[in-house]
Amino acid sequence: MTTPLAARIAKEYGTPCAVIDMDKVERNIARIQAACEAAGVANRPHIKTHKSPMLAKMQVAAGAKGITCQKLGEAEVMAEAGIDDILISYNLLGDEKMARLGALQAKANMTVAADNATVVADLPKAAAASGRPLSVVVECDTGRKRAGVETPAEAIALARTIASSKGLQFKGFMLYPTETGWLDAQKFYDEALAGVRAHGLDAKMVSTGGTPNLKNVGKLKGATEHRPGTYIYNDRMQVAAGVASWDDCALNIYATVVSRAGPDRGILDAGSKTLTSDTGGGLDGHGLILEHPEAKIAKFAEEHGFLDLVRSNTRPNVGDVVRIVPNHVCVVVNMMDEVVMVRGEEIVGVLPVAARGKLR
Amino acid sequence: MTTPLAARIAKEYGTPCAVIDMDKVERNIARIQAACEAAGVANRPHIKTHKSPMLAKMQVAAGAKGITCQKLGEAEVMAEAGIDDILISYNLLGDEKMARLGALQAKANMTVAADNATVVADLPKAAAASGRPLSVVVECDTGRKRAGVETPAEAIALARTIASSKGLQFKGFMLYPTETGWLDAQKFYDEALAGVRAHGLDAKMVSTGGTPNLKNVGKLKGATEHRPGTYIYNDRMQVAAGVASWDDCALNIYATVVSRAGPDRGILDAGSKTLTSDTGGGLDGHGLILEHPEAKIAKFAEEHGFLDLVRSNTRPNVGDVVRIVPNHVCVVVNMMDEVVMVRGEEIVGVLPVAARGKLR
Repeated sequence: MTTPLAARIAKEYGTPCAVIDMDKVERNIARIQAACEAAGVANRPHIKTHKSPMLAKMQVAAGAKGITCQKLGEAEVMAEAGIDDILISYNLLGDEKMARLGALQAKANMTVAADNATVVADLPKAAAASGRPLSVVVECDTGRKRAGVETPAEAIALARTIASSKGLQFKGFMLYPTETGWLDAQKFYDEALAGVRAHGLDAKMVSTGGTPNLKNVGKLKGATEHRPGTYIYNDRMQVAAGVASWDDCALNIYATVVSRAGPDRGILDAGSKTLTSDTGGGLDGHGLILEHPEAKIAKFAEEHGFLDLVRSNTRPNVGDVVRIVPNHVCVVVNMMDEVVMVRGEEIVGVLPVAARGKLR
Repeated sequence: MTTPLAARIAKEYGTPCAVIDMDKVERNIARIQAACEAAGVANRPHIKTHKSPMLAKMQVAAGAKGITCQKLGEAEVMAEAGIDDILISYNLLGDEKMARLGALQAKANMTVAADNATVVADLPKAAAASGRPLSVVVECDTGRKRAGVETPAEAIALARTIASSKGLQFKGFMLYPTETGWLDAQKFYDEALAGVRAHGLDAKMVSTGGTPNLKNVGKLKGATEHRPGTYIYNDRMQVAAGVASWDDCALNIYATVVSRAGPDRGILDAGSKTLTSDTGGGLDGHGLILEHPEAKIAKFAEEHGFLDLVRSNTRPNVGDVVRIVPNHVCVVVNMMDEVVMVRGEEIVGVLPVAARGKLR
């Protein structure tokens, strides 16, 4: 079964094709903006999900305080488009990055994260190049064992190093608590805050993160901001995390069934170069097919999606165009030069993924 | 420890950065061309690995008969660059694709694969649009359960349908045997060949595939061509398959250690948006770090590579630039707009990945 819209998408753009429903995008933007406001924290959406200045500006127009980027290249695209309050939630270092950060800071209000003294020792180069102070938050690890200092004592020491570095301003703390780790995060933050206050500093920006954490937004007493990313599109991971419904999933991959060589199996023209091998934290299969929810995208070759139809009462024919909700939408969007925009059944335009592939 | 070349790459281009050694690329091209010639089959390299017309032309100049593409968009880039013998080893169907295939066939000699009658029913539209006959091979499944008819009888029937379709020429068979399935493939092929001959047809093109299968190249009696892709760069998968050494791995991802928040762990600035979540068929970890082969890239966030250093005697510092051999190079190259070319320790230029992201 191919919906009339899917047939038009296939005819006009070909498959596989990423399609976003702008009605759902706008609804997601409004809903999470309202949730942040209700929780008393500012919204600083992470643009790594959509990588589009147009969508970032819609988030800001809806009330977001600014945006979050993970890479300098993303921030460069956003600043060029006129967004002027940007957090890069990442350790940046090295001469090449300091020159670019300095140029960025000259045209937008930049904040960067740091979890170690080597990074803090490099950042004054960027501040000097821009001719004005650079804001730095201390990234704190609260259970993910990713980046972030492991103890409040280290956070306090790094905050003091930042505050005493020429051209740098200590701005506060960045946390990314696990979904069950908010009490630990509170303890860490309270200790770190007391420590910096004892040295005459204060935390004006206290940032928490994650779309799955939207159910916890506002739980950290003292938090000023939250950095959700995936909520603008949502995906199987967010549905599994209980923060979105299938109807909130604004992005689908439209793919064609190109082979049905056996009765219990088929092949989609979307493989790991379209949907990626991201399992979404261990989900079963590589996406949900809306027309055949019992079918399983069992594995991938680069341009082949292997359909296991054993459990499907209805089975697609060769030529059918199906809609897939991906496991992890952020990495899928990063595969695309553009996405097609629809509203309900109407195609309304094409949106470039302007910061796609900005890996540095 | 950062090598002098790695320091220069980081300074001039930033990290993460894909770097290819052209001396190794040329050696790989020559070695596999010689292997195909020694086995008495033509080489038709799959360009899905490098997606670069310049490298495709080097393969042709070294003796390749033509090239293989998986997507129309890849073939369009290659034909535009002047390559005129192109196999698209994929079921193509639908009006949008037939129009593009017709335009391609008007400027290059195209062959396409088919494993079902729905695809064969569409292909005459492309032939008609181009004004000349289109060559079609029957894709045969010989154990992978991907695309491909499952039985010689189906192969024979589809060959006859192709031969009787206006504007189509039956060209032969395309196989992709598993590494241990060559005897089965021989049996399948022999039966299919006898069957088409009994109907007055012949198989001028009999194509086998895969870089891991280079150890089997020539084993199928009657094969005329082989389609290896990954051999131009190689990766951890090819080393694991025994068809390449570490020194044959021509592409490295240069990445910076940006965090060492705990003694036994660290973070690289290359995550799933650089190295992809492809496990390379179940390899342990997400790449080999040449400077720290005992370190494990244990997991990924989108822009974070999680380093497990428990087994490492030497441990990198924040700011160190390391070189990574990826699990599966084809999907990694597809993340990049360009790769930096070196010869030994010298940077010699930048190569656009011209067909990157051509997902349709």
